[in-house]
Amino acid sequence: MKFCSQCGKSISLEMPDGDNRPRYICKHCGKIHYENPLIVAGCVPVHDGRILLCKRAIEPRYGYWTVPAGFMELHESLPEAAARETLEEAQATVELGPLFAVVDVIQARQVHIFFEGIMVEPIFGAGDETLETRLFHPEEIPWPEIAFESGRIALKEHLHNRKIDNPGVGLFRVSRTGIA
Amino acid sequence: MKFCSQCGKSISLEMPDGDNRPRYICKHCGKIHYENPLIVAGCVPVHDGRILLCKRAIEPRYGYWTVPAGFMELHESLPEAAARETLEEAQATVELGPLFAVVDVIQARQVHIFFEGIMVEPIFGAGDETLETRLFHPEEIPWPEIAFESGRIALKEHLHNRKIDNPGVGLFRVSRTGIA
Repeated sequence: MKFCSQCGKSISLEMPDGDNRPRYICKHCGKIHYENPLIVAGCVPVHDGRILLCKRAIEPRYGYWTVPAGFMELHESLPEAAARETLEEAQATVELGPLFAVVDVIQARQVHIFFEGIMVEPIFGAGDETLETRLFHPEEIPWPEIAFESGRIALKEHLHNRKIDNPGVGLFRVSRTGIA
Repeated sequence: MKFCSQCGKSISLEMPDGDNRPRYICKHCGKIHYENPLIVAGCVPVHDGRILLCKRAIEPRYGYWTVPAGFMELHESLPEAAARETLEEAQATVELGPLFAVVDVIQARQVHIFFEGIMVEPIFGAGDETLETRLFHPEEIPWPEIAFESGRIALKEHLHNRKIDNPGVGLFRVSRTGIA
């Protein structure tokens, strides 16, 4: 960030009055430009016990497998974001179940939020950011080829939750690369 | 948003290639400026059954009561953000319990995430954004004077959860004003 998005003048990194951390400030118009973590929403889509994964057609992690997930947009709820990403990346329609995992991905400046996803029909395909989409039995999941640590956590947590009652929400923290 | 924060030139609102919604684009340097929802993290701080609320010293909702909550910063986790806000606004140290409520505040472009908070000692005060901080027995909570719909939901959910086992996480959606 080098210029003020409000007036176009140069900005500087300084501590505003009454604040306790440096911010990008425009000395021309006074605007303070805050930077905050982004939300990534996704789901683990399941049909008849099998899990739908997408092989990524984009960097980072081109060619690796992932659960459908992406940046939450304005004007949508978390479940709407997770369902939209599933439709865009995996061309699959899901009914969303409970929110079951939240992952702080601190170095990537992201929070990843995962829902259970119920595929009403085994209909899916490859969206623009996807090379291939496939249903995996739990024992077939290609663990070494999972793109992101947060997705690996979501998959493990989902499989763990199948075995217990009232699983609730798991809160995790990783330092690895986020989704871009 | 009127100018590119990367090169300072004018931006325009257009649909990028391969996208499905308009974005602020700089035609000079090519940068696409995405806008996404912000995360507000907070907690319901409890000491010996009583709940700590803060009377706001800032707009919006000056003079109304709220649970401690505020914008998540970079380089911190969700629980760290909720604990920091509690320290800043209520001058209280909390050990965070489970994440128990998530509220989509769509028109405010925010997602509010609430944790249970355990106050080890009944020590608290008024931070810069707070007029007064006080412990309330559940029957004393000033419901008509609660600042935000999301905070009201968090308080009701917290009180409901006291009566049940394994409460899990509640997912809510409101259209009212967010925290600023």
